[in-house]
Amino acid sequence: MSHEQKAAAEPLHEVAMLAATEIYSPCRRDSVDFFSKILGMYIVREDANATYLRSYEDPFAYSLKITDGTQAGPGLQSFRAHSQAALERRAEVLEASGLGDGWKAGEFGHGKAYHFRTPDGHRMKLFFDVDYAVVAEKDRTTLRNRPSKRPAQGIPVRRLDHINLLCSNVTTNKNMMIDTLGFRLSEHIVMDDGNEIAAWTRVTNLVHDVAFMLDAAGEKGRLHHVAFWYGIPQHLMDVAELCVQEGIKVEAGPGKHGISQALFLYVIEPGGNRVELFGDAGYLIFDPTWKPVTWTQDEVQTGIMWVGADLPQDFFVYGTPILEAASAAEETRQSEPAEA
Amino acid sequence: MSHEQKAAAEPLHEVAMLAATEIYSPCRRDSVDFFSKILGMYIVREDANATYLRSYEDPFAYSLKITDGTQAGPGLQSFRAHSQAALERRAEVLEASGLGDGWKAGEFGHGKAYHFRTPDGHRMKLFFDVDYAVVAEKDRTTLRNRPSKRPAQGIPVRRLDHINLLCSNVTTNKNMMIDTLGFRLSEHIVMDDGNEIAAWTRVTNLVHDVAFMLDAAGEKGRLHHVAFWYGIPQHLMDVAELCVQEGIKVEAGPGKHGISQALFLYVIEPGGNRVELFGDAGYLIFDPTWKPVTWTQDEVQTGIMWVGADLPQDFFVYGTPILEAASAAEETRQSEPAEA
Amino acid sequence: MSHEQKAAAEPLHEVAMLAATEIYSPCRRDSVDFFSKILGMYIVREDANATYLRSYEDPFAYSLKITDGTQAGPGLQSFRAHSQAALERRAEVLEASGLGDGWKAGEFGHGKAYHFRTPDGHRMKLFFDVDYAVVAEKDRTTLRNRPSKRPAQGIPVRRLDHINLLCSNVTTNKNMMIDTLGFRLSEHIVMDDGNEIAAWTRVTNLVHDVAFMLDAAGEKGRLHHVAFWYGIPQHLMDVAELCVQEGIKVEAGPGKHGISQALFLYVIEPGGNRVELFGDAGYLIFDPTWKPVTWTQDEVQTGIMWVGADLPQDFFVYGTPILEAASAAEETRQSEPAEA
Amino acid sequence: MSHEQKAAAEPLHEVAMLAATEIYSPCRRDSVDFFSKILGMYIVREDANATYLRSYEDPFAYSLKITDGTQAGPGLQSFRAHSQAALERRAEVLEASGLGDGWKAGEFGHGKAYHFRTPDGHRMKLFFDVDYAVVAEKDRTTLRNRPSKRPAQGIPVRRLDHINLLCSNVTTNKNMMIDTLGFRLSEHIVMDDGNEIAAWTRVTNLVHDVAFMLDAAGEKGRLHHVAFWYGIPQHLMDVAELCVQEGIKVEAGPGKHGISQALFLYVIEPGGNRVELFGDAGYLIFDPTWKPVTWTQDEVQTGIMWVGADLPQDFFVYGTPILEAASAAEETRQSEPAEA
Repeated sequence: MSHEQKAAAEPLHEVAMLAATEIYSPCRRDSVDFFSKILGMYIVREDANATYLRSYEDPFAYSLKITDGTQAGPGLQSFRAHSQAALERRAEVLEASGLGDGWKAGEFGHGKAYHFRTPDGHRMKLFFDVDYAVVAEKDRTTLRNRPSKRPAQGIPVRRLDHINLLCSNVTTNKNMMIDTLGFRLSEHIVMDDGNEIAAWTRVTNLVHDVAFMLDAAGEKGRLHHVAFWYGIPQHLMDVAELCVQEGIKVEAGPGKHGISQALFLYVIEPGGNRVELFGDAGYLIFDPTWKPVTWTQDEVQTGIMWVGADLPQDFFVYGTPILEAASAAEETRQSEPAEA
Repeated sequence: MSHEQKAAAEPLHEVAMLAATEIYSPCRRDSVDFFSKILGMYIVREDANATYLRSYEDPFAYSLKITDGTQAGPGLQSFRAHSQAALERRAEVLEASGLGDGWKAGEFGHGKAYHFRTPDGHRMKLFFDVDYAVVAEKDRTTLRNRPSKRPAQGIPVRRLDHINLLCSNVTTNKNMMIDTLGFRLSEHIVMDDGNEIAAWTRVTNLVHDVAFMLDAAGEKGRLHHVAFWYGIPQHLMDVAELCVQEGIKVEAGPGKHGISQALFLYVIEPGGNRVELFGDAGYLIFDPTWKPVTWTQDEVQTGIMWVGADLPQDFFVYGTPILEAASAAEETRQSEPAEA
Repeated sequence: MSHEQKAAAEPLHEVAMLAATEIYSPCRRDSVDFFSKILGMYIVREDANATYLRSYEDPFAYSLKITDGTQAGPGLQSFRAHSQAALERRAEVLEASGLGDGWKAGEFGHGKAYHFRTPDGHRMKLFFDVDYAVVAEKDRTTLRNRPSKRPAQGIPVRRLDHINLLCSNVTTNKNMMIDTLGFRLSEHIVMDDGNEIAAWTRVTNLVHDVAFMLDAAGEKGRLHHVAFWYGIPQHLMDVAELCVQEGIKVEAGPGKHGISQALFLYVIEPGGNRVELFGDAGYLIFDPTWKPVTWTQDEVQTGIMWVGADLPQDFFVYGTPILEAASAAEETRQSEPAEA
Repeated sequence: MSHEQKAAAEPLHEVAMLAATEIYSPCRRDSVDFFSKILGMYIVREDANATYLRSYEDPFAYSLKITDGTQAGPGLQSFRAHSQAALERRAEVLEASGLGDGWKAGEFGHGKAYHFRTPDGHRMKLFFDVDYAVVAEKDRTTLRNRPSKRPAQGIPVRRLDHINLLCSNVTTNKNMMIDTLGFRLSEHIVMDDGNEIAAWTRVTNLVHDVAFMLDAAGEKGRLHHVAFWYGIPQHLMDVAELCVQEGIKVEAGPGKHGISQALFLYVIEPGGNRVELFGDAGYLIFDPTWKPVTWTQDEVQTGIMWVGADLPQDFFVYGTPILEAASAAEETRQSEPAEA
């Protein structure tokens, strides 16, 4: 069945959401300070080599894991299935696809999961059993549909929104998510030579839960950014001011993408990973026969920037692991004893 | 299978969205003026007895039909299925439920549809084939994921959001939507005596696509409100000011509900129907095992109002058709020939 | 010279601004927590019986003094003159008016000052020499026109805005400020019987630096509220949510007054004083021949509430010192039957 | 008396405000369309060669005059004095300064005025007698402190804010405004070589009513921009979207200057003049002994951009009259009689 035929068939509803992301940081304490003090996230657990955090409206035990690493970069991306049966069906398909890493026991917050990789090697898992956030008495609110109080610290983000992965080949990686997991294509950029340089895919009504962008360096498995959501435009200006004031690097924004209609701010967290802060509600896709929006080479500028200044060159080449640092580190490793 | 068992089973994904709503107006021209001049909706078609409108981000041919009526009130509520097969499966279930009105030919914008009623008699239909918005050249935008330009008129709403139905019995009506169509319960209010006086249900990631509230008058089939969405908090204050200035009755707000976390404004359109304007993004439900939030009698105040003044008494008793007017009209009808 | 003649003459520019306000609190620690943790004010000095605070854009040493008191209520209101010569000229006029309390030595932050009272007895002073805010290294910002960093705590107010005094006679108290200090009338409410029940006066381009409202209880010298400024509408909704969450009483708002066009929130700080949070920029008066806006009895509702729910009755009767407490004390003293 | 001594003396309060600005447009109809349809300004008068407009909160007959011109550029800048006496005193000082053009009869909206020029030749006048806005019945509002209804057209600006003049020598032009009219310096940029390349001056509590920026081209008398005020941050994003959609050139923003803390958008109106839209309230200066903020060469970047992308090069070199056109016009003038 071709991709077109699949699209015409009944949509698959097996993966419910992106539930957690993991990033590596060479300076975990500084990264945690950024996410907790500036973005107002709750620290929910500290392990020897990792810290778990969650936004105040994230429902589960955690949504962000920051793990010690010699380098910034993406860790394990965790998706939750709609049901145990859906999980098992997807595991079979993934296994058959050759990208499966097999079942693994549960970890903090998540039950038994099927692990897999994108063609480029980005590590992912799908799980169903979950632990809900355990909230300290002092952090509970009478607003019963909100798992925890809105923090009075920093400009608190409300929830994890999406991840954006750099790929050596956008089409291959995107198709794998569509074919095996039922992701649907919302928008993409296709150049005159037919090269698909970016794609935004969803399993929810959001325009994207996972995006794919061409890695200009031709690398595999890097991270472009993880995104947290405000939904309130003013908060983006507020957090921008706080970042500028506190010396957090603001790479771009505030501005509004055409694609996804996201009011954005891109900052580099102290560990080096790019973080997108998503300011408004963007738009939602309810239409079950949504025709993916194809931005052509002529239109790409409007797609990338609807309102605001052009994005800096770094936006299109910087990712984590950082290549320069990687090379430098490599050299260092080859000529010297490893750090203590 | 009990409701609890159903909830534990795999979720049903057959109804995709609320696609259009219909209201009756005794003064259609004034109603149309309100929706087009204050709420910035496009007028897409004028028939002898009805006008069709759409918000600038509504994808289909229309999202609001205003039909001539001697009285304000709800008309036909139109839902779109995820696929033709899903439509047919739901039609069978509805037919078996005894609430079906059968298949009817397509109308403006929508293909062949299965018509049905809630236990209280609110008229609805489910369809799949749809016409997308046909947008005049001058109203097209280079923002390719937006069907039409953002109007420079009034404070334009972005899309239809939800409907709220008054019911003689909330539980009965709500369960019908859950059992036959796969709606899921997001939040509800249950009094100490076990009486469920309001329920918010969804088929999307929105907290609610259809809400049900107890009709204090014990009537059947009335409308509490239809809701249009801004997603931008400031726009609610902007439209509130415009309504006050232009003499449109503002019943309540701006304020923020606890339930759904909606930043709201309730206005009475010139025809008499209540319209909710939904200012921010509220919160979204991605969790496939979301436990419905039950607001108890003690908590109901927080649920209804999180931020802002108490709602006026009218909010809890006023609906359309208007009862006083209904009675008056009834009397009139009894002594005079009805209008055509 | 009549008030009308004065108004026609060249405007007086001698008082530059409201520089600081003082309130009494029976629970200073809780009050300080409110202003520092929820409103994000800097604590600049702690004395045995008073705490001094400032908003992050207040230029001088402090803008709010919270003093231990058995009762909530207003303390000393401090205005800064345009020059030393202006201070001396005003002191002479105040002295001649019979409302002067004489020159007093400088206190923390302010130089030698002339003290005086309104006809109702609200205590005030006028000074010129001032200490600018001394800001700790860690709280300094590279934004050189801002005295200190924007705090990452609570929803920080930006500056002291105005005070609103309850009066036994609005006209008498207002005229004293106009005649002796050069305040100008921006807006007022005049009832059909000629009774001026509220007046908003300015020495800056703000609509009001000092407002006067009739004390329904006929008391003298009470405080209606002190106001701090955000200037950003969203922050009012943010702080409202924080207050609700933390159990700070929200008396009214968010809403928008017609008078002054203030987007407001009224909260009762833990000590019992009403605090207005001023959300947007309101409007500014640059017109040197501004004709005061007279709201008549018919129009008073529009003047009080432009957008939002009616204000609660308490708004019109509650002030500090609190009368109930006073009455209770009175009862205790008199040990007599309560009034009917 | 040196400038320092003047600053130490009692402040002068003679000029109350910038009351109106005039720009030339080579395509008046398009310019008027921009200001009326996108910025929601009222058209108050159409003459054979000029159109007068006002924002909905501008108090006087008009605040913007668009005059036919072969070239874009600044016309007459109109300031209102605090009183007739103040006007006469200033006229004397201006006359003595050698920059006076003498008294001229009143024009539409303004009484008899004293005309003068900056050292660079920017044309200005000072007047006192004024006509208030005459508002059509349908455009009047019950919000009595607002001269006219908030338009339901475009994203309506609220008032004229300031003008920014390009100068061959900032210091000379700025000092003339300070010395003769009592403007006060709020902020300025001084390079390492002592060159003052920009200055912001005020006669109100605004950070600036008139700004001066070095003309990189060394020209005299050009306009950098005229500014209109929203005071509501969201409206800047709204109007930016409308401008992008309608093909109005957005040169820079949304972003936030350090200097003045202005949330800004710069657009080029169809006639070629740069227009700043001022989104938030900035900050206000009440302090009568405000020490001008001096931004050094090291700090200039923070001063120019606090939040947002660097300004494009055009921001620093483009002004009106446009130089390329100026040269062309120059050639034309040399071969033809000057226009009357």
